[in-house]
Amino acid sequence: MHVLISGAAGMIGRKFTAAIASTGTLGGETVTELTLADTMEPEQPDGFSGEVTSLALDISDPQAAARLLSGRPDVIIHLAAIVSGEAEQDFDKGYRINLDGTRYLFEAVRHQSASANYCPRLVFASSVAVFGAPVPDEIDDEFLTAPLTSYGTQKAICELLLQDYTRRGFFDGLAIRLPTICIRPGRPNAAASGFFSSILREPLVGKPAILPVPDTVRHWHASPRAAVGFLVRAATMDTGPVGPRRVLNMPGVSATVAEQIEALRTVAGDAAVALIRREPSPEIMRIVSTWPRGFAADRAIALGFRAESSFEEIIRIHIEDEMGGEL
Amino acid sequence: MHVLISGAAGMIGRKFTAAIASTGTLGGETVTELTLADTMEPEQPDGFSGEVTSLALDISDPQAAARLLSGRPDVIIHLAAIVSGEAEQDFDKGYRINLDGTRYLFEAVRHQSASANYCPRLVFASSVAVFGAPVPDEIDDEFLTAPLTSYGTQKAICELLLQDYTRRGFFDGLAIRLPTICIRPGRPNAAASGFFSSILREPLVGKPAILPVPDTVRHWHASPRAAVGFLVRAATMDTGPVGPRRVLNMPGVSATVAEQIEALRTVAGDAAVALIRREPSPEIMRIVSTWPRGFAADRAIALGFRAESSFEEIIRIHIEDEMGGEL
Repeated sequence: MHVLISGAAGMIGRKFTAAIASTGTLGGETVTELTLADTMEPEQPDGFSGEVTSLALDISDPQAAARLLSGRPDVIIHLAAIVSGEAEQDFDKGYRINLDGTRYLFEAVRHQSASANYCPRLVFASSVAVFGAPVPDEIDDEFLTAPLTSYGTQKAICELLLQDYTRRGFFDGLAIRLPTICIRPGRPNAAASGFFSSILREPLVGKPAILPVPDTVRHWHASPRAAVGFLVRAATMDTGPVGPRRVLNMPGVSATVAEQIEALRTVAGDAAVALIRREPSPEIMRIVSTWPRGFAADRAIALGFRAESSFEEIIRIHIEDEMGGEL
Repeated sequence: MHVLISGAAGMIGRKFTAAIASTGTLGGETVTELTLADTMEPEQPDGFSGEVTSLALDISDPQAAARLLSGRPDVIIHLAAIVSGEAEQDFDKGYRINLDGTRYLFEAVRHQSASANYCPRLVFASSVAVFGAPVPDEIDDEFLTAPLTSYGTQKAICELLLQDYTRRGFFDGLAIRLPTICIRPGRPNAAASGFFSSILREPLVGKPAILPVPDTVRHWHASPRAAVGFLVRAATMDTGPVGPRRVLNMPGVSATVAEQIEALRTVAGDAAVALIRREPSPEIMRIVSTWPRGFAADRAIALGFRAESSFEEIIRIHIEDEMGGEL
């Protein structure tokens, strides 16, 4: 099996690549070849004995998709995107990369599929940003997409394209709407959602963190490990039972900030909690208030997608995967 | 007020143009200038004393939008599209005209809005084809778009773009999802929905018509006159109360084919009904079975959009508007 990963140098891309490299398989099938692409050349994964092609390219270059597909990958994991903050700040860049780049990729697959017996699995990482307030406490599988950001708009458009290209038989697509990934490893970043991770990640290593919203804010979370599991499932499952609606809300944990903090207290004690400093930001609160609070992800669960069952589990996974299992 | 109409030579475009020409106004405001565009040069409307520019152009030509906007219209009515059957048959043409053409127009407005104090009203004619089975008997204002045609996909994508461009302040957009327009004047056409009109229009003038589906088929209808009314309302209403969700399911009449036929009997008698010949088409039935059957169009009704209240009314409007008021 040949697997192509766009956005392979990102956090999820690296973890997904590492998961393949560590076993040499994807969903039980042997992976003989990896094509890894990003704006900077992705690193060669440790311990993978198959062939690896690393490409530095810009997916908004109309010629890039042909390079991605030259090895006719069996599975395409399309993660490449600019994030929500940047897509909001730079309108043209957001549409060029998140929409046009995706469409170039889809078109390149279509043209290959027309010329030969080719219909790869294509997994697109979408986002709960396709939803916008007002939303119910639990968004079900038939709720409208009404994004309030350009990023969410671009993701929702790509979902529609993916379903049409799949219906036409150009590829076998699945779009998975990822929860906010928590705890994101690495340094604090500028994303409006960054505090959901930093109020846990920083205190776990004895560092202070800033909480810009009230404790009552509720949001939808899954661990990086769960996100990799979603991608593996989407890449390898039988799509027959999915039907023409190829977009799935992923399962997750709905938790308030207060519940996040209590989970931190359980795992790491009062001293860790004391490192969280409240510094309200009306600007971040305004953005966060438009986001989903929870989902009834019935279809995805019925199709075998699994997330954590508590916030404590999310924190323990971070300790296992990022801190060598030790506090 | 300067009004631009793309797709002005189509059935709805001509009726909307005629409505403006007959009074010289739109929503009470004087229209001093009309720009009419289509693939073939639209006819000059009768009785309009303002300036008229008729343009023959292809909206999928990246240069066309600049010509459309050169007079900086205050109101843009974007009707231009290829129909569902053609978009399904010719994948490239459908995306080129229905998606890229619309995006070129939106982009041209954005670039004008950036360079000067310009934020026109932009009304986009969308369609209930954005919905696909399974659907509830009454689709509400929060139901997901899951189109089962490329045409429906293209309309749903343009809706998303319109909302993002509106949120950004590039124009003041509204997308209205039109019911199946019934009774369409003119000759029978090849559209899968054509029979909804022809089983009434043909018997009303003593001609036979073919019914390819069972009497139990239920669908969502509004008259051409109602469609013009929707466009007038969307072009002139205060959009303040609409909020960021700029896509509205238009009201209509939910009727079974049996109810359509009984309305025909009431208006035109048994002799007219006897002209309908049943010739089941599994292919048309397959397509129609994926379409919406009815809506709870609460938002649109609250915002002042009005359709007919019975199918009999739809037939009487056809007799008034297309047959000089005489059977």
